Amino acid sequence: MLDLINAIRSRDPAKPTFCEVIFAYPGFHAVVFFHPVAAGLWKMELFALARLWAHIGRLFTGIEIHPQAQIGKNLFIDHGMGVVIGQTSVIGDDCTIYHGVTLGGKGNGAAGEKRHPTLGNNVVIGAYAQVLGPISIGNGARIGAGSIVTNDVEENSVAAGNPAKVIGAAASGPAPYGLL
Amino acid sequence: MLDLINAIRSRDPAKPTFCEVIFAYPGFHAVVFFHPVAAGLWKMELFALARLWAHIGRLFTGIEIHPQAQIGKNLFIDHGMGVVIGQTSVIGDDCTIYHGVTLGGKGNGAAGEKRHPTLGNNVVIGAYAQVLGPISIGNGARIGAGSIVTNDVEENSVAAGNPAKVIGAAASGPAPYGLL
Amino acid sequence: MLDLINAIRSRDPAKPTFCEVIFAYPGFHAVVFFHPVAAGLWKMELFALARLWAHIGRLFTGIEIHPQAQIGKNLFIDHGMGVVIGQTSVIGDDCTIYHGVTLGGKGNGAAGEKRHPTLGNNVVIGAYAQVLGPISIGNGARIGAGSIVTNDVEENSVAAGNPAKVIGAAASGPAPYGLL
Repeated sequence: MLDLINAIRSRDPAKPTFCEVIFAYPGFHAVVFFHPVAAGLWKMELFALARLWAHIGRLFTGIEIHPQAQIGKNLFIDHGMGVVIGQTSVIGDDCTIYHGVTLGGKGNGAAGEKRHPTLGNNVVIGAYAQVLGPISIGNGARIGAGSIVTNDVEENSVAAGNPAKVIGAAASGPAPYGLL
Repeated sequence: MLDLINAIRSRDPAKPTFCEVIFAYPGFHAVVFFHPVAAGLWKMELFALARLWAHIGRLFTGIEIHPQAQIGKNLFIDHGMGVVIGQTSVIGDDCTIYHGVTLGGKGNGAAGEKRHPTLGNNVVIGAYAQVLGPISIGNGARIGAGSIVTNDVEENSVAAGNPAKVIGAAASGPAPYGLL
Repeated sequence: MLDLINAIRSRDPAKPTFCEVIFAYPGFHAVVFFHPVAAGLWKMELFALARLWAHIGRLFTGIEIHPQAQIGKNLFIDHGMGVVIGQTSVIGDDCTIYHGVTLGGKGNGAAGEKRHPTLGNNVVIGAYAQVLGPISIGNGARIGAGSIVTNDVEENSVAAGNPAKVIGAAASGPAPYGLL
């Protein structure tokens, strides 16, 4: 939990204090409090209770995470309103996701099947980007705000647009365009 | 109400149980509980009360439906956060709408005038698609996630992009791209 | 406050009554009640309390406004769910912003630096448009729904698309496309 607070404090250019993160970061509440409990209930096969709890988490945070979604270390969901993370999503370590992002399915596939994306480590996904289907987003990739992504994105590349195309390499420093 | 629960259970690839739908589906709460009461108050010409009730529904579900909007049978609003359904919208039967979808106006028109879209039956609208103006979306049409639609879309066609273009025919089976 | 109610009643084609605005307009609650208190606490250097209050405002309205953001007269945030207004944003008078709009940064820049947009007067920003970086949107400009804007937009012009391009001049009367 302290790791995540430090991660948020270093990644958010607003440089929030410790207390600001604790009190006013819905992404922090979702990742530290609501999702772990929902995931635990799901593993105990209390499916309806797990989803009810996730639903309550959504009510307080605006962030909807399916109890079965797998989330790595230090996920920072910034702002968070409208985020939807689907059932078979897998998120690596140290990722940053902005408000309105969907890790979603494409409305088909069977219940047991992998229907949602897999994110590597250090991935950044801009506001309201829709990442759909059982695709892979490589380590260090960056997705521009408002992008519609339905194909794999390679490591350390930047994708943006509707539909999304690779528009460059993710280097350190400012983002090419559309990133939040 | 049982019809809608069954419709959700068959249309959602996550295959929720009966209890999961009852407890954890905000789109279910909006369509079965909040909107019918708001619509009833509106018909009784208790306009402010109707809108207050719709506002309370939005607080609990993240879904904003104007009390005067006309909604057909078995509308499934999945996830739901950020959905806005405008005053003169008409929605046919068996439609599926994802989170962030707007059935909106274009900021002009008189109060009595038709300003919002009309959806046929079996329409699917992907996440965060914006469908704007007094346009028609034909039966069985599918709109990709993040599309900006301001023209009519014909029956059984698929539209996507910003601005949206028809990109194919809606057959059974997997969606072309960008659909959630 | 009466000015804003009148502004909303004249700008919203749904022509709400006085009571409807008071009871059911989250954008009204955010601008008249939540943000001024948060801004006052921030000026008193009660930073964590200011952000907690802004966070509570977000819970009730779906609108997230950083306490330090500068907002002009008669801002009408319509629908409002998912709006994020960043720390160094400046908004002129008589602007209209729809739900899902971000006045955001690009994930870089130092805490003291200007990282967010400046809007002139009479600007209209359509639903889910993302306006990112320390850019200027000129007086009377209109931004289409779902646009991704990372460059300056000149006075009285209309920008739309992902990435956004200028597509015409903002005259009175109907919007070109994609405006909500």
